[in-house]
Amino acid sequence: MDRARLEQEYARCQDRFLAEWKDLLRFPSVSVDPARAVDCRRCAEWLRSHLAALGFSAELPETPSHPLVLAEARGEPGRPTVLFYGHYDVQPADPLERWTTPPFEPALRDGRLYARGAQDNKGQLFAGLKALETLLAARALRCTVRVLLEGDEETGHIPMLAVLGRERERLRADVVLACDTGTVESGAPTITMGVRGIAHLTVELCGPQKDLHSGVHGGRAPNPALGLARLLASLHDDRGRVAVAGFYDGVEAPSADERRLLAAAGFDAARYEAQTGVPPTGGEAGYTPIERTAFRPALEVNGMHSGYGGAGSKTIIPALAVAKLSARLVPGQDPRRVLDHVKQHLRERVPAGLRLEFPEEGIGGSALRVRPESPWVPRARAVLAGFGPLPPVLWWEGASLPLISKLPALTGGEPLLVGFGTEDDNIHAPNESFALDRFRQGYLFVGQFLAGI
Amino acid sequence: MDRARLEQEYARCQDRFLAEWKDLLRFPSVSVDPARAVDCRRCAEWLRSHLAALGFSAELPETPSHPLVLAEARGEPGRPTVLFYGHYDVQPADPLERWTTPPFEPALRDGRLYARGAQDNKGQLFAGLKALETLLAARALRCTVRVLLEGDEETGHIPMLAVLGRERERLRADVVLACDTGTVESGAPTITMGVRGIAHLTVELCGPQKDLHSGVHGGRAPNPALGLARLLASLHDDRGRVAVAGFYDGVEAPSADERRLLAAAGFDAARYEAQTGVPPTGGEAGYTPIERTAFRPALEVNGMHSGYGGAGSKTIIPALAVAKLSARLVPGQDPRRVLDHVKQHLRERVPAGLRLEFPEEGIGGSALRVRPESPWVPRARAVLAGFGPLPPVLWWEGASLPLISKLPALTGGEPLLVGFGTEDDNIHAPNESFALDRFRQGYLFVGQFLAGI
Repeated sequence: MDRARLEQEYARCQDRFLAEWKDLLRFPSVSVDPARAVDCRRCAEWLRSHLAALGFSAELPETPSHPLVLAEARGEPGRPTVLFYGHYDVQPADPLERWTTPPFEPALRDGRLYARGAQDNKGQLFAGLKALETLLAARALRCTVRVLLEGDEETGHIPMLAVLGRERERLRADVVLACDTGTVESGAPTITMGVRGIAHLTVELCGPQKDLHSGVHGGRAPNPALGLARLLASLHDDRGRVAVAGFYDGVEAPSADERRLLAAAGFDAARYEAQTGVPPTGGEAGYTPIERTAFRPALEVNGMHSGYGGAGSKTIIPALAVAKLSARLVPGQDPRRVLDHVKQHLRERVPAGLRLEFPEEGIGGSALRVRPESPWVPRARAVLAGFGPLPPVLWWEGASLPLISKLPALTGGEPLLVGFGTEDDNIHAPNESFALDRFRQGYLFVGQFLAGI
Repeated sequence: MDRARLEQEYARCQDRFLAEWKDLLRFPSVSVDPARAVDCRRCAEWLRSHLAALGFSAELPETPSHPLVLAEARGEPGRPTVLFYGHYDVQPADPLERWTTPPFEPALRDGRLYARGAQDNKGQLFAGLKALETLLAARALRCTVRVLLEGDEETGHIPMLAVLGRERERLRADVVLACDTGTVESGAPTITMGVRGIAHLTVELCGPQKDLHSGVHGGRAPNPALGLARLLASLHDDRGRVAVAGFYDGVEAPSADERRLLAAAGFDAARYEAQTGVPPTGGEAGYTPIERTAFRPALEVNGMHSGYGGAGSKTIIPALAVAKLSARLVPGQDPRRVLDHVKQHLRERVPAGLRLEFPEEGIGGSALRVRPESPWVPRARAVLAGFGPLPPVLWWEGASLPLISKLPALTGGEPLLVGFGTEDDNIHAPNESFALDRFRQGYLFVGQFLAGI
């Protein structure tokens, strides 16, 4: 099936595609929130039955967390097997008051569909499913396609790994295709050649049994808020380098070729500031802003809470201070060892009189690199070359795809990461959206790529 | 009226006193919360009409914030004039879930009355009003008593100062009696010889226009949570001394006599830790724990909030980080100048790419010292000597009494600070309470002191 035919089919079906996509977005499948577990399950079941209706044999394997969706459509013997990956879980929607329309009531405005998950990843995965639908209906799919949709991408942990290990034979593939990435800021079609790993940690610094009056006790009782600030400030040196001993152990440097390709993809600091409201001044000195997210690890504070936060003042020494940390990792770093180094660093610096605890932690996964010689890269490039107006580029993402990073070893397949997200999509933030035109590009890419193998 | 007669009257009336005290505590007069302004006003009106019923001429002077309650009962010519001070506003009650019974539904358990404000200051002021009631009913009050109750003690600002300036003539007094302090940990009756001043400041560090994905942007976008942690960590040196240039300018050292009296009042570090859950290791090295709260200023973080704080992880670079700071000040420090020094310190250290703002600030008041030669101190001491079992002690509080600190200059009166609070009362925290026996002591002290002058 050629591009023209796919475009024709898209034009014919787009209203229905949009209606179904909205149905998928109405599930508040927030995987980190235990109260939403039932919504995650309903979402998975909706996807399973949707795949079954397209002609897949589809199941819902249980995991210790949210169920997987696993489906297969057999192709011709001798043709390659593709594992198509996506995740149906979404980030929490708070702060709710900053959404223009409610996060789980999809709303179309100016060519964009607004909802939590509109892009990440329900929009991108559903574009792929719709391409599969078209190919299957036209009997134009010759390769075998296996679909794996998970519900734990945003939790940063991968409790289903044992389950996948048991399913290893049914997951075997030649290529793992994931559409959970974006395009570079120029808008050029983008093949992602690497993603960072992730590990996260919740840090609690415990002080008085209860909040104390900061007049009676100020300058006498140790203050967990101040103590936590000092601990967090110790994580980086004055040049933005992570100051945790052992943090950079094993970090692999990119090849000269990789650095050259990355630089060619382009980065405009003024445009970055216009888009985000900040200049790209975070992180380590000595690297360009795109090198820092592509090839260097980072240790960030995702949240920090202690004491009073309302109007006016409340003069207390808080009983407790909590921080949420996450590390982004590059090839050569082991997430478990990195977390251990961070914990050790913090333990060695606990302010007198306070108690340090780590109530939560998670190993999301190691970093992933696509082999420069992967045969799937030129095939994807050839498809994307037709998208224009800019030629396709290779790129390294700062974000993480925890399970995808494990899939090559598990399935035997080479990873291939092609996605159509943009910074405007506001993923992980209020007012997430995905442009209908980008949804269409995802459909066309998956359709052409699979039709050609 | 002697002590025995006061005890007799208390025993006769205590059930009614308790019922009325509960009525007073049911007003959620949280002065920092604009939504509670109407409750503050209702509370003030209740007090005004209560005082009128006792025989006072009582008014409700308006201020730019919550109304004052101002009342007078004329005594015999030639007798001194006493200004009795209290505040009817209370601290916010959150976190609500940590209260055993609701904060504005007073509950009696094991000889203690539990409610927000049970001690601070509704309980202590109401004990005084009940003593005044007894003396007036028995025609045993010979001095003139003026009552001044404010509704802005907990806001840390004193918008009614201009109003009080206009009322200066009606506030003129020989002694300003305030029962808003506590006793030392041994439980010995305590005359407070000084309190610290206070100033507070809200610090906002603004970053991206919206929360950013910490994978895509981690190590590239400047992080306001990390930036705020670094700013707060810079406020103190490694020995706990405030590192803000100019902070200690003008700080007056206590006299050798004051240090001796303070040491005599006693402090038990093990008991402190048992009561609060922390050892007294906060604040500056080089001073004893009680010297640090009595004679040294402090700069504390009362709250710190940024980004995600829920279950699991949410991998963002937060758009904003906010901290609530307050400084406790000693004689010689000007609150305005101290705040300016702190702001300057922070401005000089703003991390690259972030924007610093000070959306709120407040000058609560300067520190107060009672003159060692004040004639009212031996009179109070004589009354308290009868309370036993321990002899009365002199003490310097770490907390602040913003308006009281202004009253000597405003009224011409010498301050006299005698209160009966204890650490167990949990003021400014969940489950605030006041022991009925301490309420009774407050009644007896005010009654005996006023009957004797």
